[in-house]
Amino acid sequence: MDRVLAADIGGTNLRLALIDENGNFIDESRVEARLSRHDQQTREAAENYVLDTLSEAITPFLDQHPVSDIGIGFPGFFRGTTGILAGSPNLPLLEDFELGKRLSERLKIRVAVQNDALCAAIGEQRFGAGRGHENLLHITLGTGVGGGLILNNVSYTGERGMAMEFGHLRVVHKQTHRCGCGNYGCLEAYASATAVARRFAERSGIDTDARQVYEYACDGNKDAALILKETGIYLGLAIAEAVKLLDIETITISGGLSHAWHLIHPPLMAELNDNLIPPLRGKINVIHSTLDDKAGLLGAAHIASRR
Amino acid sequence: MDRVLAADIGGTNLRLALIDENGNFIDESRVEARLSRHDQQTREAAENYVLDTLSEAITPFLDQHPVSDIGIGFPGFFRGTTGILAGSPNLPLLEDFELGKRLSERLKIRVAVQNDALCAAIGEQRFGAGRGHENLLHITLGTGVGGGLILNNVSYTGERGMAMEFGHLRVVHKQTHRCGCGNYGCLEAYASATAVARRFAERSGIDTDARQVYEYACDGNKDAALILKETGIYLGLAIAEAVKLLDIETITISGGLSHAWHLIHPPLMAELNDNLIPPLRGKINVIHSTLDDKAGLLGAAHIASRR
Repeated sequence: MDRVLAADIGGTNLRLALIDENGNFIDESRVEARLSRHDQQTREAAENYVLDTLSEAITPFLDQHPVSDIGIGFPGFFRGTTGILAGSPNLPLLEDFELGKRLSERLKIRVAVQNDALCAAIGEQRFGAGRGHENLLHITLGTGVGGGLILNNVSYTGERGMAMEFGHLRVVHKQTHRCGCGNYGCLEAYASATAVARRFAERSGIDTDARQVYEYACDGNKDAALILKETGIYLGLAIAEAVKLLDIETITISGGLSHAWHLIHPPLMAELNDNLIPPLRGKINVIHSTLDDKAGLLGAAHIASRR
Repeated sequence: MDRVLAADIGGTNLRLALIDENGNFIDESRVEARLSRHDQQTREAAENYVLDTLSEAITPFLDQHPVSDIGIGFPGFFRGTTGILAGSPNLPLLEDFELGKRLSERLKIRVAVQNDALCAAIGEQRFGAGRGHENLLHITLGTGVGGGLILNNVSYTGERGMAMEFGHLRVVHKQTHRCGCGNYGCLEAYASATAVARRFAERSGIDTDARQVYEYACDGNKDAALILKETGIYLGLAIAEAVKLLDIETITISGGLSHAWHLIHPPLMAELNDNLIPPLRGKINVIHSTLDDKAGLLGAAHIASRR
């Protein structure tokens, strides 16, 4: 592939990179951009806001690096590889929005766009810890918990692009903390970075973020260590359910919270093996991403280059 | 397709049918045959016992109806469409056994063999309630609980042929009743016909079978009605997890216990929709099989005819 642009869209930031055919980063940039706003009354206003925000954030970097393709990892559900946004939890007005096509008209380059966690899965499989595996489940462990699935080297998106809602698998069967989706017991409400900070605050009375909880745990704080151990247990429970359905051997995990690997991975593996059917026990590999926060950008570059 | 034989292998019986290209049953037979015996010491003894049992049960029917192909639904995991048995919970000595090839040498006809629940899924998609759906999750609700998955008209078997262990999804998070697989909380330990009889006995003190529990419920017995309502709830919980991962729209259910449809289906749908992410609520169809106990035989006939 030639050089392409890649974009990874988070809650408040948009990351950009110029990437070559071997996955090397030639240049990078980070732009503040908040995609969801709740004062839009009409679909047209919401469409224009998203298109304006994205093109304003991307154009200066594109002017510096004039290429013909951009790949974008976007927090939403897409219909196959059409670039049509089926829906997005944070953009309720934009069901069935031709985001790829409309943004292409604005930017005047080709646009490939796909779910952000699926981009991370593609990046991990092509360039990272998932290399050489035709089948891969990739989990992103950040502010939220996402999942992307590759089967026989092909991205699996489901009938409406809503497959691999891994963060909403149910791991707690009591009505305690409510998830952003409105349900109780979702993995994301117990094992995301946000949830780790919340659970630590509930236990210790200390308000802080997940990174600090990790540092407390490394310094011997028992509450912090317990919260991260439980995070591994919740992840192991959810991965077991996915493996029992999909019979998939290789699972990779990226995202900020995965930096606590040595605290999360051992309880995760113990819980996973406890919950599998006997012939699968000991046969599943759960591997830390080697790409860290670059998996999504590399996956976005890959979908751009394949067009 | 020409006429083919189909076999569906249960715990104590082997059902046989001669089926034409339109899925019509020309002749049927049921033979007593117990596949698992626990006095075999060596793999060779176990192999010969299985081959002897199957060929003795099948040969008389084959002599009556000399055809060139048989399809078999077998309670075990198979490697893709190779006919190689990866493993079977009831036949621990037979890992990686070339069942299809060896049985073909015995019977002197072509043999296609696949997991029994997957055969039922294939039958339901080709000839039953799943017709016209490229993607289908089929659940068999009998002595055990099985699952078969079709994606883009292709059977999904997983990396080791162990995909869709639907009956072993965890629906109860307390260590109460142990499943046959050794774990606690599996769907099969709460929602199979066996489990319905057990749970009714625990509640009412009356030892009976699932069919009788259903009849009690129809006659107004509140314990029986509650057990079947809870069965629907457990199924709804497990289906929600599968839908959140696979984003699949159509689910069909067959098997003896599905005869209690009007008691199981309403609580199942309520629990399913409660547990889905909001954009999927109300969009999933769970349909009663139209083939009843013929789904597995029709699927077996289909895999035989495709060779």
